[in-house]
Amino acid sequence: MQFPRITPPDQQAHREAVARHEQLTKPPGSLGRLEELGVWATACQGACPPHPFVRPQVVVFAGDHGIAAHGVSAYPSEVTQQMVGNFLSGGAAVNVLAAVAGASVRVVDVAVDCDAADPATVTAPPLVTRHKVRRGSGAIHLQDALTDAEVIQALDAGVTIADEEVDRGADLLVAGDMGIGNTTPASVLVAALTGTEPVAVVGRGTGIDDAGWMRKAAAIRDALRRARPLIADPLALVRTAGGADIAAMAGFLAQAAVRRTPVILDGVVVGAAAMLAEELAPGARQWWVAGHRSVEPAHTLALAHLELTPILDLGMRLGEGSGAVVALPLVQMAVRILAEMATFADAGVSGPAGAPLPTG
Amino acid sequence: MQFPRITPPDQQAHREAVARHEQLTKPPGSLGRLEELGVWATACQGACPPHPFVRPQVVVFAGDHGIAAHGVSAYPSEVTQQMVGNFLSGGAAVNVLAAVAGASVRVVDVAVDCDAADPATVTAPPLVTRHKVRRGSGAIHLQDALTDAEVIQALDAGVTIADEEVDRGADLLVAGDMGIGNTTPASVLVAALTGTEPVAVVGRGTGIDDAGWMRKAAAIRDALRRARPLIADPLALVRTAGGADIAAMAGFLAQAAVRRTPVILDGVVVGAAAMLAEELAPGARQWWVAGHRSVEPAHTLALAHLELTPILDLGMRLGEGSGAVVALPLVQMAVRILAEMATFADAGVSGPAGAPLPTG
Repeated sequence: MQFPRITPPDQQAHREAVARHEQLTKPPGSLGRLEELGVWATACQGACPPHPFVRPQVVVFAGDHGIAAHGVSAYPSEVTQQMVGNFLSGGAAVNVLAAVAGASVRVVDVAVDCDAADPATVTAPPLVTRHKVRRGSGAIHLQDALTDAEVIQALDAGVTIADEEVDRGADLLVAGDMGIGNTTPASVLVAALTGTEPVAVVGRGTGIDDAGWMRKAAAIRDALRRARPLIADPLALVRTAGGADIAAMAGFLAQAAVRRTPVILDGVVVGAAAMLAEELAPGARQWWVAGHRSVEPAHTLALAHLELTPILDLGMRLGEGSGAVVALPLVQMAVRILAEMATFADAGVSGPAGAPLPTG
Repeated sequence: MQFPRITPPDQQAHREAVARHEQLTKPPGSLGRLEELGVWATACQGACPPHPFVRPQVVVFAGDHGIAAHGVSAYPSEVTQQMVGNFLSGGAAVNVLAAVAGASVRVVDVAVDCDAADPATVTAPPLVTRHKVRRGSGAIHLQDALTDAEVIQALDAGVTIADEEVDRGADLLVAGDMGIGNTTPASVLVAALTGTEPVAVVGRGTGIDDAGWMRKAAAIRDALRRARPLIADPLALVRTAGGADIAAMAGFLAQAAVRRTPVILDGVVVGAAAMLAEELAPGARQWWVAGHRSVEPAHTLALAHLELTPILDLGMRLGEGSGAVVALPLVQMAVRILAEMATFADAGVSGPAGAPLPTG
């Protein structure tokens, strides 16, 4: 699996956006992080002033994990499949949040533990099921998550999905996750790639109790023992301790950068996939912002590793892309500030004392 | 000036919203702060499930400050008047942000240092000018900001504006500030009411240099010396070291609580007004959330004093209500989650392992 070399966002547009911020009727820097976000989005779009994002697209990657049968989650595996149905009928959190933020939601069954023709998905359009890799990924404390061929198939699925969405007009992408047990492989991958001890990455996931936390810690420890020797080989790592959904997200995030399409990252599962994507396609992270910081300890490690500062810190831990979608209105605001605010010259407003009125 | 006793948001609706969150297809608590915000908004509305806010209204209170002539701001006073024109023509940051968030913006000239018929405001509708108290407030390091009569007039203006907006259908209010030099009185008020030393409240405002910072620190010290003996009397305090715009905002924020209408607070100037409003109408803060934490040090003190935790922390320092408006989409999302998400029963999704499927 070889990604083309990632080129950075447009530096000329970046410079123009920085200069434009100085001309707008506000003290320089007074919009804080919104100014940085606007500059980043402008650089990604390649022209200043930027335009509002017109087709933000969320893709939820659903997959089950064999580890879920070993007491690491508060919920049974069947919930993954049930939630696919809930996404399709618009009842999940990410559907509601995306409606407010003006984004569309697509759900993709990468490795849900059901047949593509199971009742809950039988009415699903081919967009949901045509990239399915397998039924559930292996229980990573005991066995590999995937075969080598499945790793490539899952990555390819993610690449294809990114291409499909960009070709259909998506100008901003969000990856979301859905899969009971998926914070366990995510935590293992983050621990492996950051050189962290198992106990420091174990979170409560959907809300496990203390006994569940101990089972999860043991599972992460065992999986990490298998994964640790493979940290120089991201494909081997995701085969051993990841999952098809995570591999697909990694392909999706890397391909977004190839396609010069900006991404808002979500929580720990997407964060683990992003670390893999950055390994596979160095520089891809320039096309991403971190929507939020989740309460999962491994997420903070992943963000630090990727040198991304989260926009929001709201104590969220849902997944589905929800934290990224909550940040989307702020990214839109950042863009529209650059696109729509009056300049000092437009509005006849004086600049700082002693400075001549800008003429731009 | 006597406000009616403030009654809290509806506790029955609060309980119903907490219970509803447990029924929605997500792990309990997994939306973090969004869940708390949704419960608060439901309690303010008095019925569960809540409805999306349909007419959020921003009111920008514009006023000049005599202290601005003494080198405490990076901008000349004339900018206040020029920015009133900018708000009216839709070119300011808060206009752009409000358009994204679905809010309307009204600007009120409370104490701008110009005639109501000056060129920049002559085309302004009476809504802008009819509550004008005076041309600029006094230079508070040397003299009182207002007379006793002007304090009452300004508070009344704020009360009337809140009534006007609620009567016109506003279901969520935001107060914003515009006034060169206004972080100086705001910092004095916060220092007085929190018992803080002057140097700990001096911020950079619109972006003053080190010499300006020293002038501002001296002005705050001198004004605080005059204000400190009056901390038990909020009306005397705002007369001595506040301003007409701040008094009007205090009246507006208190009256919002009287009218049982929720408010998103902005930065340090609104924060100072909110502290006065809570003194004048104890319990009013139950009707407010803090939209963001600004970089002004006095704002952090004000939030702590009011026991409000900011939703956002984006390094903003613009005023105009901008930080509150950036938080508005998150409040809308919080409400719509409660209003629109499917329950476990609706969606046929299993609850946590071992728990029976909820029937609600």
